[in-house]
Amino acid sequence: MDANQFREFGRAVIDMLASYAENIRDYDVLPSVEPGYLLRALPESAPEQPEDWKDIMKDFNQSIMPGVTHWQSPQFHAFYPSGSSFASIIGNMLSDGLAVVGFSWMASPACTELEVVTMNWLGKLLDLPEEFLNCSSGPGGGVIQGSASEATLVGLLVAKDKTVRRFMNNNPDLDENEIKAKLVAYTSDQCNSSVEKAGLLGSMKMKLLKADADGCLRGETLKRAIEEDKSQGLIPCYVVANLGTTGTCAFDPLHELGPICSEEDIWLHVDAAYAGAAFLCPEYRHLMKGIEHSQSFVTNAHKWLPVNFDCSAMWVKNGYDITRAFDVQRIYLDDVKTTIKIPDYRHWQMPLGRRFRALKLWTVMRIYGAEGLKTHIRQQIELAQYFAKLVRADERFVIGPEPTMALVCFRLKDGDTITRQLLENITQKKKVFMVAGTHRDRYVIRFVICSRLTKKEDVDYSWSQIKKETDLIYSDKIHNKAQIPALEQFTSRELCEKSK
Amino acid sequence: MDANQFREFGRAVIDMLASYAENIRDYDVLPSVEPGYLLRALPESAPEQPEDWKDIMKDFNQSIMPGVTHWQSPQFHAFYPSGSSFASIIGNMLSDGLAVVGFSWMASPACTELEVVTMNWLGKLLDLPEEFLNCSSGPGGGVIQGSASEATLVGLLVAKDKTVRRFMNNNPDLDENEIKAKLVAYTSDQCNSSVEKAGLLGSMKMKLLKADADGCLRGETLKRAIEEDKSQGLIPCYVVANLGTTGTCAFDPLHELGPICSEEDIWLHVDAAYAGAAFLCPEYRHLMKGIEHSQSFVTNAHKWLPVNFDCSAMWVKNGYDITRAFDVQRIYLDDVKTTIKIPDYRHWQMPLGRRFRALKLWTVMRIYGAEGLKTHIRQQIELAQYFAKLVRADERFVIGPEPTMALVCFRLKDGDTITRQLLENITQKKKVFMVAGTHRDRYVIRFVICSRLTKKEDVDYSWSQIKKETDLIYSDKIHNKAQIPALEQFTSRELCEKSK
Repeated sequence: MDANQFREFGRAVIDMLASYAENIRDYDVLPSVEPGYLLRALPESAPEQPEDWKDIMKDFNQSIMPGVTHWQSPQFHAFYPSGSSFASIIGNMLSDGLAVVGFSWMASPACTELEVVTMNWLGKLLDLPEEFLNCSSGPGGGVIQGSASEATLVGLLVAKDKTVRRFMNNNPDLDENEIKAKLVAYTSDQCNSSVEKAGLLGSMKMKLLKADADGCLRGETLKRAIEEDKSQGLIPCYVVANLGTTGTCAFDPLHELGPICSEEDIWLHVDAAYAGAAFLCPEYRHLMKGIEHSQSFVTNAHKWLPVNFDCSAMWVKNGYDITRAFDVQRIYLDDVKTTIKIPDYRHWQMPLGRRFRALKLWTVMRIYGAEGLKTHIRQQIELAQYFAKLVRADERFVIGPEPTMALVCFRLKDGDTITRQLLENITQKKKVFMVAGTHRDRYVIRFVICSRLTKKEDVDYSWSQIKKETDLIYSDKIHNKAQIPALEQFTSRELCEKSK
Repeated sequence: MDANQFREFGRAVIDMLASYAENIRDYDVLPSVEPGYLLRALPESAPEQPEDWKDIMKDFNQSIMPGVTHWQSPQFHAFYPSGSSFASIIGNMLSDGLAVVGFSWMASPACTELEVVTMNWLGKLLDLPEEFLNCSSGPGGGVIQGSASEATLVGLLVAKDKTVRRFMNNNPDLDENEIKAKLVAYTSDQCNSSVEKAGLLGSMKMKLLKADADGCLRGETLKRAIEEDKSQGLIPCYVVANLGTTGTCAFDPLHELGPICSEEDIWLHVDAAYAGAAFLCPEYRHLMKGIEHSQSFVTNAHKWLPVNFDCSAMWVKNGYDITRAFDVQRIYLDDVKTTIKIPDYRHWQMPLGRRFRALKLWTVMRIYGAEGLKTHIRQQIELAQYFAKLVRADERFVIGPEPTMALVCFRLKDGDTITRQLLENITQKKKVFMVAGTHRDRYVIRFVICSRLTKKEDVDYSWSQIKKETDLIYSDKIHNKAQIPALEQFTSRELCEKSK
């Protein structure tokens, strides 16, 4: 394919993507395919000869599109949003066109430095403590990771390295492996599965402490767990606080957890994967009270901000903590001496290679402006509140917990089984996509405003579908005198998460 | 930015990227900027108000482009290639436009299934043993990881999990942490830094065994290390064999290492990040003799194949090994039962989230066809051989080791210091970018055909620059009667790698 064919193909795809966004309401949010549909539809081997781009587009429309779950559909209310925007698509096009690998400054100075610049911009917009910013006088700074999962694991590995060093410095006779075996991490039982997985991957016991009735991990609970473990000779090392849990968007009180971590010299990592974007707006910043006690903070720009996956924005207070843990030294590229201020980002992450991801963050922040991003967040919250109003006006439903951010959890008053039946029926129709959660041991349906394209009329449409299915269930019930089966019991955590 | 503005902006960027590829020879491969140039050039904060896309393009051209190292330039001969192509850029545009997150089948059936299909296609093209393919009767399969670093770490963590299970099954009284502390991994001292880092991140001692004079890890060396460690009560667990080392593209003899690993029940992971793409061509497949003994294999489609980062193609013989180690169970999404044949890919990787990366692999394989991809590999090797011929015709130079793939290592006969001076002078001129390596304790310059755009005339140009700088060094030497300083000694490994 030469440059001119690319111009042709590229323009066709630009047009197609623009039309996709314009006409996305024409698609059912959920696809009507069975497992294996594409394995059967496509050839078993790659073509021998080059093919024409028009054939590829034809197959894309005929075979791929029917199997797509439309995350950008205004009727997608499941999990949490998958960030996307025209600005971000363009940023990635620029990145792919240059196709640089930014593992060191020299490998592409602009790649490293634009990441420093944009992470300072975003950090300031979120009003993070200055210590987290590269432009402060200290060794803090931001880095784009591939996912919140990765950020949580990076934090855990760095905390492990730091704690082991501290213990060995104080007791040079101690065995490194013995120390490692005693390390413990803590989080809430409302955490995302990726937090539990970080413990698994990083070989550290991750204790899921019981959250309170509102889904929050309280300081007292953490304090008790730490004391108990210390009395048994274990070494508390890492705490992951959740600002906006996946299940119900609950906020752990950082002002309770933080001082405990500071006192005990425990690395506090803040997982604000979804809700962190709300700190763009001053009216939500009270939810991060206590942030000054944390060592690292992550929010997924690719979630609630309109930046395409992957763009996990992570900040640390001390970049040396990371580079000490991750630097596998080679003297290969000694031509340019860089510092913590112009980072060699390969030492800030697990892999060596890295794309020019800052470009999409840059195009998004410029095309939207700070004002545009705040408006995006506020509008999504307003739409959720509008939905909550609709639900509240229908006496068959109850809302709980009190909605936060762009998430509304609701259920039928008549119980868990009928609520689950309702969700199943709605999902079967494929017009609206929501998933379940639990709150105070009750089964709830999670409704999240996800798509940047969602308008008031879309919420009306989703609600009309929910109402229609509810009417159907109740009319069936009356006709068939069906009994609601006994309540099936789920633990809170079993149903609480998925989407990071 | 609405859909129409996106059409405008998008077309402008398509044109710009097409022109970039057409006119890439107008740029110096290396930028002329100093550390901090962009931090000084850009505003300290994000704009408050939305900006016009034309201003963004202006700043891209004025501020970003001058700081770009042009990895796609025909004069980029450093590290290894960063894969890219028009077809791949388009594939990513499609992926970004849909912006799905494919952590489960239901989250986007097409995303999961196209990955299964394309990984089967590629596995067949590489002639991997059938057991690695999803379309075989067994539990094997392919998965796209973010980087070879990640694949190596995934292999290590799975090997650890499997070995610990085996030991605990055989000796239920053993302490899990004690077993973990005894696990050992092996690789060659020519390995990429990411392999060493995998040991660091995965908390497993990674022993870098001495390669032979040709840079290959021999079976005898591995056998001796294993026996020694076993006699000390350690548990050999994981071996990373390198097919195409970063330094000199040496190939570890799998037919020597493989049987040892099989006999000792050690997980053998094959890191063919760069050179694996050559197995598209039957004439190079002898280099993977013994592959049947391996448990996992990775090659970076984003390296020597024209697929944009990130697309690390990894295959495993037994998918259950991975899912057992990585599955953090939730019953949240129990609506669709999938199997190892229709994988829930979140259990095949470290993070939870994942993009629709199979799209770019699909567009590339279709636009190139198997023939086109083979031609790409063969042409790049031919160009390297042509370069080697040019070097051999100049008596001041010597080549070594014998070139493999698209890499030629060469040095001045007059010694390491003058060779290093030559590389420094060339780099300073910014017209040609190469980096150093070592071979048999001599400093060598690595010349890799990297860009898909490189033609014979480009090789002529690069060689003319190398010759010009060589002439200058020798004329200076004669005029100044400068002495060549004593040979500075580097260890092989210190200089061997960077680019994965």
